Amino acid sequence: MPELRKDPIVGRWVIIATERARRPLSETVVSSETSEGLCPFCEGNEDKTTNEIFACRDPKTVPDQKGWRVRVVPNKFPALQIEGDLNKKGNGLYDFMNGIGAHEVILECPFHETSMARLPQSNIREVLLAYRERLIDIKKDSRMVFGMIFKNSGAAAGASLQHCHSQLIVTPILPVNIGEEMDGALDFFRYRGRCIYCDILHQEFLDDKRIILDSPAFLVVAPYASRFPFETWIIPKSHNSHYENSSENDLNELGSVLKTVLLKLEIALDNPAYNYMIHTAPLNSNPLEHYHWHIEIIPRLTKVAGFEWGTGFYINHIPPEQAALVLRNTEIDKV
Amino acid sequence: MPELRKDPIVGRWVIIATERARRPLSETVVSSETSEGLCPFCEGNEDKTTNEIFACRDPKTVPDQKGWRVRVVPNKFPALQIEGDLNKKGNGLYDFMNGIGAHEVILECPFHETSMARLPQSNIREVLLAYRERLIDIKKDSRMVFGMIFKNSGAAAGASLQHCHSQLIVTPILPVNIGEEMDGALDFFRYRGRCIYCDILHQEFLDDKRIILDSPAFLVVAPYASRFPFETWIIPKSHNSHYENSSENDLNELGSVLKTVLLKLEIALDNPAYNYMIHTAPLNSNPLEHYHWHIEIIPRLTKVAGFEWGTGFYINHIPPEQAALVLRNTEIDKV
Repeated sequence: MPELRKDPIVGRWVIIATERARRPLSETVVSSETSEGLCPFCEGNEDKTTNEIFACRDPKTVPDQKGWRVRVVPNKFPALQIEGDLNKKGNGLYDFMNGIGAHEVILECPFHETSMARLPQSNIREVLLAYRERLIDIKKDSRMVFGMIFKNSGAAAGASLQHCHSQLIVTPILPVNIGEEMDGALDFFRYRGRCIYCDILHQEFLDDKRIILDSPAFLVVAPYASRFPFETWIIPKSHNSHYENSSENDLNELGSVLKTVLLKLEIALDNPAYNYMIHTAPLNSNPLEHYHWHIEIIPRLTKVAGFEWGTGFYINHIPPEQAALVLRNTEIDKV
Repeated sequence: MPELRKDPIVGRWVIIATERARRPLSETVVSSETSEGLCPFCEGNEDKTTNEIFACRDPKTVPDQKGWRVRVVPNKFPALQIEGDLNKKGNGLYDFMNGIGAHEVILECPFHETSMARLPQSNIREVLLAYRERLIDIKKDSRMVFGMIFKNSGAAAGASLQHCHSQLIVTPILPVNIGEEMDGALDFFRYRGRCIYCDILHQEFLDDKRIILDSPAFLVVAPYASRFPFETWIIPKSHNSHYENSSENDLNELGSVLKTVLLKLEIALDNPAYNYMIHTAPLNSNPLEHYHWHIEIIPRLTKVAGFEWGTGFYINHIPPEQAALVLRNTEIDKV
């Protein structure tokens, strides 16, 4: 059973998950995966994963068999597990609880493609719909507080398998980063009466130098205080705190926006490793006036070093205005 | 001029330092450095660095010439610069100021050694004294708020040169991570009337399963909520909020403790890349009852991935009790 432990000074929770030490190492898997038959995420190898929780699949096909386009399975080496009670406890100065939660893997395509940017639009759209379905389903469990959907693409971004996939980790407590974001947004809302993300959209249109892409329902920007070179945020233009409350139309449009942005990054930066994370409101909250879901994409071009670990300051040598200019001008027509 | 920009949501500051894009890349330097003459940090190559600010050197030798044992110079590609005014400004939603501060490099030995653990004790002790001297000197400048001393060792830890060195970056505002630590420690002090780090020392002696090394003046532990496998903290046993208020005796002892710990990590983990950071109270504060300086060492064995970036939760697959056991039992006698 994984364990959740709290740092007594800053209140940060850590998952001590010894099971995960057994998962395959990227170095070994990257080579064995190239012989397609060995990839556990490819169609035909359904018996190499745990049983599916959700899938977009052709009518007349059955679970855990061929015929799927997007497939969600529990992680074989989960950071948190679904069965059990939290059993919160203290030991002197220290607090801990059982590592209850969920850890799922979203297999994004049945064939062995390693770049999400190169997936057909239809696949990407169904992935985004699968995210929504999983969050809606997980919400029914009152122990679950927050669902973080994220992608690690490339070994430098922490991926241990190459086949296009993303992950959902659901935690029984509000993560500190999301808590800080929500607190900051709430402070702003109390002072100004407006959503800070809606104000950011307004400011970015005014400044007009950090916009990467402007679609009817989404704005893609290099954020003003980018921590990393080519950090990219996708923000829905209509106020909405919860990703899972997005309409099917919006997610369809997001599919093409995400594909375009990932292609631009792939071309401009020569296939960088990257992470993306969907920042959304806690599962157990009602629609919020002060919070606004969005996607943060971080190309992993530089190493985080001692200064960043110690201070939380980041040093970025590419101004977001320059990054936005490069990405805006990156042509993807011929891909 | 570098620029400091504030994230309007969470209040995190970012340094946009375009000058740093010009610094050597680790890939190219690692190879050229092996021909010793080309290392700018080796004795005899003093003309390849900026002019020294401080040095431990033999009597009768002169600055910026041979004869030094430890040498401090301004970083050639500074993240922050010493000249100028902060000139704080706003632009709509966004806040920024000039990137005023200091960025120094501590050259830890005159010969081409790449592992601090292999340096003579005398070198390490003088490095720790040099840290103290630099903080005491920087304190005189009222614009300077916080001094972060850190080491990046190995390319995976963000080092761009191999020759043993550490760095000091001084910021004109309190970094968010240190602020959170100080706030957490102050909350605890207000509630319990004691320093939380002193309580941690007490708890670690009671639990007696995360102690790596116990010297007269320092305790070395794998912290209870370790974010990373083999994360290691060195905590002075006597309460002291400011590193620069440490006695020469204490720093001499710290020299041998640090050498022992780094050797244990080097042997147990096969020369890992690592970072260490000295967490200390702000330069402009008096001695504080609630804060306690310490060193955090992070071996870079795993990649930080999307889940960690998004949530601030960390997943660690090696319990600190197991890491402490390994390091406690790692023999260094024959080195």
